Amino acid sequence: MKTQVAIIGAGPAGLLLGHLLKAEGVDCVVIERQTPDYVLGRIRAGVLEQITVDLMARLGLDERLRAEGLVEEGFNLADGERLIRIDVANLTGQTVVVYGQTEITKDLMDAAPARGLPVIYGAEDVAVFDIETDAPYVTYTLDGAPQRIDARFIAGCDGFHGPSRKAIPASVAREYERVYPFGWLGILADVPPCNHELIYANHQRGFALASMRSHTRSRYYIDVPLTEKIEDWSDDRIWDELAIRLGPDAAANMTRGPSIEKSIAPLRSYVFEPMRHGSLLLCGDAAHIVPPTGAKGLNLAASDVHYAAHALTHYFKRADNDAIAGYSAKALARVWKSERFSWTLTKLMHRFPDDGPFERAMQVAELDYIASSTAAQMSIAENYVGLPV
Amino acid sequence: MKTQVAIIGAGPAGLLLGHLLKAEGVDCVVIERQTPDYVLGRIRAGVLEQITVDLMARLGLDERLRAEGLVEEGFNLADGERLIRIDVANLTGQTVVVYGQTEITKDLMDAAPARGLPVIYGAEDVAVFDIETDAPYVTYTLDGAPQRIDARFIAGCDGFHGPSRKAIPASVAREYERVYPFGWLGILADVPPCNHELIYANHQRGFALASMRSHTRSRYYIDVPLTEKIEDWSDDRIWDELAIRLGPDAAANMTRGPSIEKSIAPLRSYVFEPMRHGSLLLCGDAAHIVPPTGAKGLNLAASDVHYAAHALTHYFKRADNDAIAGYSAKALARVWKSERFSWTLTKLMHRFPDDGPFERAMQVAELDYIASSTAAQMSIAENYVGLPV
Repeated sequence: MKTQVAIIGAGPAGLLLGHLLKAEGVDCVVIERQTPDYVLGRIRAGVLEQITVDLMARLGLDERLRAEGLVEEGFNLADGERLIRIDVANLTGQTVVVYGQTEITKDLMDAAPARGLPVIYGAEDVAVFDIETDAPYVTYTLDGAPQRIDARFIAGCDGFHGPSRKAIPASVAREYERVYPFGWLGILADVPPCNHELIYANHQRGFALASMRSHTRSRYYIDVPLTEKIEDWSDDRIWDELAIRLGPDAAANMTRGPSIEKSIAPLRSYVFEPMRHGSLLLCGDAAHIVPPTGAKGLNLAASDVHYAAHALTHYFKRADNDAIAGYSAKALARVWKSERFSWTLTKLMHRFPDDGPFERAMQVAELDYIASSTAAQMSIAENYVGLPV
Repeated sequence: MKTQVAIIGAGPAGLLLGHLLKAEGVDCVVIERQTPDYVLGRIRAGVLEQITVDLMARLGLDERLRAEGLVEEGFNLADGERLIRIDVANLTGQTVVVYGQTEITKDLMDAAPARGLPVIYGAEDVAVFDIETDAPYVTYTLDGAPQRIDARFIAGCDGFHGPSRKAIPASVAREYERVYPFGWLGILADVPPCNHELIYANHQRGFALASMRSHTRSRYYIDVPLTEKIEDWSDDRIWDELAIRLGPDAAANMTRGPSIEKSIAPLRSYVFEPMRHGSLLLCGDAAHIVPPTGAKGLNLAASDVHYAAHALTHYFKRADNDAIAGYSAKALARVWKSERFSWTLTKLMHRFPDDGPFERAMQVAELDYIASSTAAQMSIAENYVGLPV
C-alpha cells in the first residue's frame, strides 16, 4: 500500500491527525494495534482546552461534544478547610469543556468511514523503517499476513510504549524524565459529581481530585504509594478516603456508587527531543508524558496534531518544507510550558515523602498567595485553559 | 531604668521601630551590642520596597533617600543569551528604590538624638527575662557595669544570632528551615554599575547578580560552593567570572575596580513561629531569614516593624490588646509570602547540585513562560515591589 502519511496509532492523536489531513486532501492511513473496542475501553482524561474543542469544530465533529460536554467556568484548589476558586472564565474569557477522551475517540472513530479515513485495527508487530530517507515505510502483520505501507511521512501517534519514538537513533535524542513517588488511584462511577467544578485537594492524608465525565458519571482520584495494590482498595475504602481528603462540604454532596473502573496509574513527567527526525513526526504521548494534574495530556496531543497537520499540509499542498523543519521546535515550545504547569500543580497539590515542614509551609504560602493575588490566579487560569498555540 | 518598650538591636529594624514609637509618644530605649561604626560597616541589601520608603517618609527621614536613592522601574532575568525585563513600573504602578541598608541605618542613627530616641551602644551580654509576665526586663553590662531596663514590652530586633528568639521556650516554638547548597560571593566596588537596572543571571557556570548602591558604587554577586574560601578569589578572578555569567552585553559595560568589600555568605530560608510570646515581639532577622534573591530581607523587617509599631501604639494609646495578640499572625502572613517569593526566585535562578536535566528544563520552561506571559510577569512584579501590608 502507498500513502502520503502513515499514521501509527488510532487514539485521539492519530485519528485527529488523520481527519485533519483528510480534510485538507492529504492522503493518509491510520494503523492501530488494538481493536476498536479496546481503544474505546481506555479510561483517560476528560477536560478539553479550547484548542481541542476548536479542532473538533473545525472538522465538524463537535455536535455531540457541544450537546453533552459540560462547559466549566472555573475549578477549585482545596487545602484543609479552604476552597480557592479559580474563576477561569472571568480571568481569561475562556472556558474548558468536560468531555471524556473516550468520547472524542468515539466521535473520530465513528466519522472515519464516511470521511474516507482508512483505519486498520489489529495491526500487529508494527515497525517503522528508513525514516532518515524520503521514502519511509511501515510494516505490520494483519491476521498473520505481513503488510507494508510506503509513505512520504510517518506520524508516530502510538503513545509512550509505541515503536515510533524508538526508531529515532539515540545519538540525536535527548530524554528528560521525572518519576513521582506516588500513583493516582482512580475510580469511575455512575453517580452525580459532588461539585459542578473540579476540586483538587491537598489534604494531610494526601491528594484527592473530584472530577466528572457528565452530570451522571463521576471520576475521582486519590494519590497512593506505588506499592499499593488495587485489590486492597474496596469501593467503600476509596469513598471513605475521598470523603476525608475532599473535606466535609464535598463529602456531604458526594454520592457513592459501585465502581465501573478502578486502577492505580503511576505519574511521570517525560519529554523526548526532537519531535521530528527525518520523515518521522511524533505527536502526543509518543513524545511526552505529563502527570495528570491539570489535565494537559490530551490537550497537548491536540496541539501537537495541530502543528503536525499544518506542517504536513503545507508540505503537500505548497511544497513548503519549512513547516516540517520547524515542527519539533514549535511543538516543544508548547509541550515544555504544559510540562511546567503540570509539574508545578503536581508539586503544589501533593505531599511528597521527602518534603519536610519547610516545603509544606511553602505549599501553604503558595496557596495563600494564590488566594490573595489576581495575577497568580490569572497565571494559573491561562495555563488551565491552555496557552496560545 | 524603666521604659515602655525595650528594643534590642540598633540595626534598621530596631531603629525604625524606635523612631516610629517615639513619633507616637511611646517611650522606648534601643540597646545595641556593637559600636555605631561597626553597625554602619555591615554591608547588606539595598533595594527598598515602597513600604520601606513610606516608613522613612512618615518619619520625615527620607530627604537623603529621595535625593540619592535610585528609582528602579524594572529588573532583568538573564538566561544564556536572553534578557527578560520585568517592567515593574508598568505592571504594578510602583517602583523600588536602590538605597543601601547602611544608608537607612545611618539616617535613622543620625536622627536619633534630635528625636530623643535613646540608643545604648556597646551593651554586652544582653539577656531578656520574664517575657511571660507583664513586667519583662533586659539586662546587659555597659563598660563592665551591670544594667537593667524594665519595660512593658521587649522588641527583639537583634538578628538571627541575637538572644531574643532564644528566650521563647521551645515548647511553644516551631522552626522551619532550608539551607542552600551554595553561598553568595559578593564584591562591592566604587565603579559605575554595568546596567541601570538589576540583572539576575542563571548561567551554566552558576548564578550572578549585577546590582548597585549608587551611580558610582556597584554590588555584584556570584554563587559559589560553600567550601570556597574568599582568599582564593582575587578581584580579577571575581570580575572574570562575573563577565562570563552575566553575558557579553553586561560584560562589555562592566567597569572593573578594586573591591571595597568582598565576602561569602551562606543562603538560608528560616522562619520562627510565633513572632510574639508574652511580652516579647520579634521583628526582622530575629524571626526569619530569606535568601537574598529578590532583596526581601530588609523590607520584611520593615513590614514587621510596621505591624509591631501599630500594635504597640494601640496598646499604649488605646489600651487595645488585640493588635498585640494579632501581631504574630499578621506579620507571619506577609513573612511567608516573602519566603515563598525568595525561595521561588532562588530556585529559578540557581543551578542546584542535585538538579538533573529535567529540573534544568523546568527552569528554562519557567523562564520561557515568564517571557511570554503578562500574568507571570505581573505576579513576579507585584512580589518584587512588595505585597500589600
